[in-house]
Amino acid sequence: MKNQYLKIEPVGGIGQIGSNMTLVQGESDTILIDAGILFPYEDFFDIDYLIPNLTSIPTPSHLVITHGHEDHIGAVFHIIKQFPNIKVLASPFTAALIRKKLEFNHAPYPITEYRHFDQLSFKDFTIDPIHVNHSIPETHGLLIRDYKEEFGLFFISDFKIDYKTIYERPFDFEKLIKLSKNLKRKILLVDSTNITSNTLNTPSETEIIPVMDEIFGSTNKRIFITCFSSNIHRLMTFINLSKKYGRKIVPHGRSMISYLNTANELGMIPDFDSVVKMAETVTPNQENITVLLSGCQGDFRGTFRRFCMGEDSTFKPRSDDLVLLSSKAIPGNEKKISLLLNKLAEIGIKIITSQEKMIHVSGHPGRNDLLHLYEKFNPTDIVPIHGETSFIRSHIEFIKKSFPSAVPHYFLNFDSLNIDKDFKLRIEQGIKQDPVIIHGKHLVLEKEKISERRKLACNGSVFISLKVSKSLTDVEKISFTFQGLPTLITGNDDKFRRFLENYFVQISFKDLNKTSEELRIAIRKYFDQILGYKPQTFIHIL
Amino acid sequence: MKNQYLKIEPVGGIGQIGSNMTLVQGESDTILIDAGILFPYEDFFDIDYLIPNLTSIPTPSHLVITHGHEDHIGAVFHIIKQFPNIKVLASPFTAALIRKKLEFNHAPYPITEYRHFDQLSFKDFTIDPIHVNHSIPETHGLLIRDYKEEFGLFFISDFKIDYKTIYERPFDFEKLIKLSKNLKRKILLVDSTNITSNTLNTPSETEIIPVMDEIFGSTNKRIFITCFSSNIHRLMTFINLSKKYGRKIVPHGRSMISYLNTANELGMIPDFDSVVKMAETVTPNQENITVLLSGCQGDFRGTFRRFCMGEDSTFKPRSDDLVLLSSKAIPGNEKKISLLLNKLAEIGIKIITSQEKMIHVSGHPGRNDLLHLYEKFNPTDIVPIHGETSFIRSHIEFIKKSFPSAVPHYFLNFDSLNIDKDFKLRIEQGIKQDPVIIHGKHLVLEKEKISERRKLACNGSVFISLKVSKSLTDVEKISFTFQGLPTLITGNDDKFRRFLENYFVQISFKDLNKTSEELRIAIRKYFDQILGYKPQTFIHIL
Repeated sequence: MKNQYLKIEPVGGIGQIGSNMTLVQGESDTILIDAGILFPYEDFFDIDYLIPNLTSIPTPSHLVITHGHEDHIGAVFHIIKQFPNIKVLASPFTAALIRKKLEFNHAPYPITEYRHFDQLSFKDFTIDPIHVNHSIPETHGLLIRDYKEEFGLFFISDFKIDYKTIYERPFDFEKLIKLSKNLKRKILLVDSTNITSNTLNTPSETEIIPVMDEIFGSTNKRIFITCFSSNIHRLMTFINLSKKYGRKIVPHGRSMISYLNTANELGMIPDFDSVVKMAETVTPNQENITVLLSGCQGDFRGTFRRFCMGEDSTFKPRSDDLVLLSSKAIPGNEKKISLLLNKLAEIGIKIITSQEKMIHVSGHPGRNDLLHLYEKFNPTDIVPIHGETSFIRSHIEFIKKSFPSAVPHYFLNFDSLNIDKDFKLRIEQGIKQDPVIIHGKHLVLEKEKISERRKLACNGSVFISLKVSKSLTDVEKISFTFQGLPTLITGNDDKFRRFLENYFVQISFKDLNKTSEELRIAIRKYFDQILGYKPQTFIHIL
Repeated sequence: MKNQYLKIEPVGGIGQIGSNMTLVQGESDTILIDAGILFPYEDFFDIDYLIPNLTSIPTPSHLVITHGHEDHIGAVFHIIKQFPNIKVLASPFTAALIRKKLEFNHAPYPITEYRHFDQLSFKDFTIDPIHVNHSIPETHGLLIRDYKEEFGLFFISDFKIDYKTIYERPFDFEKLIKLSKNLKRKILLVDSTNITSNTLNTPSETEIIPVMDEIFGSTNKRIFITCFSSNIHRLMTFINLSKKYGRKIVPHGRSMISYLNTANELGMIPDFDSVVKMAETVTPNQENITVLLSGCQGDFRGTFRRFCMGEDSTFKPRSDDLVLLSSKAIPGNEKKISLLLNKLAEIGIKIITSQEKMIHVSGHPGRNDLLHLYEKFNPTDIVPIHGETSFIRSHIEFIKKSFPSAVPHYFLNFDSLNIDKDFKLRIEQGIKQDPVIIHGKHLVLEKEKISERRKLACNGSVFISLKVSKSLTDVEKISFTFQGLPTLITGNDDKFRRFLENYFVQISFKDLNKTSEELRIAIRKYFDQILGYKPQTFIHIL
């Protein structure tokens, strides 16, 4: 591509929510924006997470991080393993989060900090971070421009527009407009998370405050709150209200403590020392405490789950507690959370969810917010990103209807947006690659191994060992183990032994492979007749 | 309990949505209302369903069914196995559904039909079915009264109030009021499904018609619709509109065909013969067809899923198709469905969901509908049923606020509502019993076996057989099988073999049990060091 100026290729984040990672390639530069993980989207049996397939991507010199959510930083570990010379750039708070994660994984690595007023210079382009609002501090959109300042691409995945926030500055439209006003071609790559939501204008983070204030004023008993631990501004609301009502605030759960400490170490929490207490320093049953529980998605090993199940060693639920869910279920987690609420309801605990009162607001833009951004930036072209495929399609329809002066473009992971030297655009279809499954010590677990696990789990398993005589005519000893089979089978192992013994009478062990396979089929048939399904069957003949 | 008149004990359905089953015991009578299944509520690895634990319930003489949904009839098979003399009573349509199910399972059984105008007489009480609206035809509330007509208990689990429906009569308040007006004590056991919903008045089934009419009028290409197959009135809307627009309607998927045929056999579908065509009689690509797909919850083996994935052998998705989701995700299925919509969106198919247009309405009452029922029946006592525990609690709060003249009562599965001969009420706490897991040929799979399956699935498995010498000193042969472990392990089996051989050098096989257990621990440790988790390990020494 002689005439090519820039190529933008998402390797994650478009077509599924999560694992955000986008390649930006110029003639001389190859950089990555974000390196996130994808949470398991179907039944992967307790694996840790998924990441984009990195095997076919070119070596990037830099990784620029927009903000500190796991779907943007969770795969940094894998990126630095794969590309050991890469330079990682992040805002101070985000950098602190990444450093802690890497240290926790015994893989410390230097992270270079950038501030929202810095300009990141590369050979083919510059990047100006634009401060935006979201549900974690220090979130940035990235304005990529050529050195002639004729071309601009504004990459803005997660954001909201919050003119009322008291915790940070609002979306920095002034800078965006100033830097982009003379550009001839302006491309917007933009968030699609909430495109199908009925909320047109995402409420301000501050709209929670009066609602929470009233709730805090309504009880002098213990309050338990679960929310996303990374939502520092939300946590600050709880700290401020706890101070107002003479409460101590107790972060509980590894991630809640870690995020709060990180924010405090950077001086972001004014009242930390006077209001925040660690669980070991409070009496669990004292009434003037607000306990912040991590694990708002009902995660299997999460603190919120442990609390609800009565399995937390420090805090046991009591009927006069108040429990607040200052969060929303990520699709797929609804049932898990609802079962936990049942546990609290059994005890008679009062629960308030965001469905009843405005104790949670989204970190993503509603349709009117998107339109507001379109109007401010006035792009010539808009490319929806950060969404399920069906969201991307809906976003395209929305652009056509609501902002017809811009051309919408549809692309998914591994497709590319090619910009030539005259700044003309062309979408090129790429070869899709499945995300990679990670389990244990950050190790790849191949897809077919997940399929083996699924078969074991869905059908149970039988292991059989046979010791045959030297003459290969008789079976001298039989051992077998059942796993995951009903008592109807395990309680009648004599019956299975008789079946095997009868079977062996008729056969020889001259051709071991053949006999073994025939036996396997016969055993599976035996179980199928009893159970209606065939356990995974493994035979060793010694 | 000498003074006891009646005891109502739910064995399923309260505290979790599903497996509805309620014991009604008088001095001489023991009857069951409904016998439903519970769909797997967490990761049970592809098991079929759950049912209430039947081991400790007294033998009922009758099973009275309110309506034909799976969470009310799905466990009839198990009830008739457990209680082979039980008499099963159901409305004609419901009876037909049950008969088909039992015949499919090679367990035919006589079902006695009752009509809405029949009175079912028992020794201690009578039951009058009251016709109500819902999302399946022939749904009834059951009015239980004593022979003196002083006491009445109106049991109404699933219902809605639909004054505008054109497919059936509206909720029969007239009969309810007539039969209950002189009762001294009136207890209402009532649906809590939608208590946390923001919809106050559930819209009529007919409100879908004009919306669907407009959609049908907007395309002359193929339309694919997925919805609950049992919603016969909804299917009739699609049939009527297909007729209006010169389309043939094609039910596709076992359950869609089965429900539609059952309804037709009972004469419920006027235009069946002229409009409904089986898939094998149409050209899949002809444009004037409406295809009704079963599996609206994205079920793994469902037809809707197969269609979306491009795996259906008859109908392949095409970019000019229109796909309608005339249904709502049952909590837990959201992500599964959204992944299927991505597949359609990739092709560029236009999708309409019930979030965008009113193409689905609930079959359960909103808060105003509940209040309407309270006002019409004017109960002295209200007992919320059919809901998660947290819903039951919310329903109690709602009764306190909105209908203070009735006393709300809180009970869950295995608790009992005891009514003495003076019709005074007392709730007695019972011993909770976990639901029973059913897999394969309607067989029980014990909970600890699910736990074995989970461990296999989450950690993978190693199965090792050793042949030791007669002297018990040497290992003569080693066989091992890995399941669900990464290529890092399976691709390096020499390394594992060397580890085993080195291990065997140091040990004897005199105490087989001890050696086997020590070896198991050593192997798990070996893998833990590499993988960060311990596969399930099974050893046979022969």
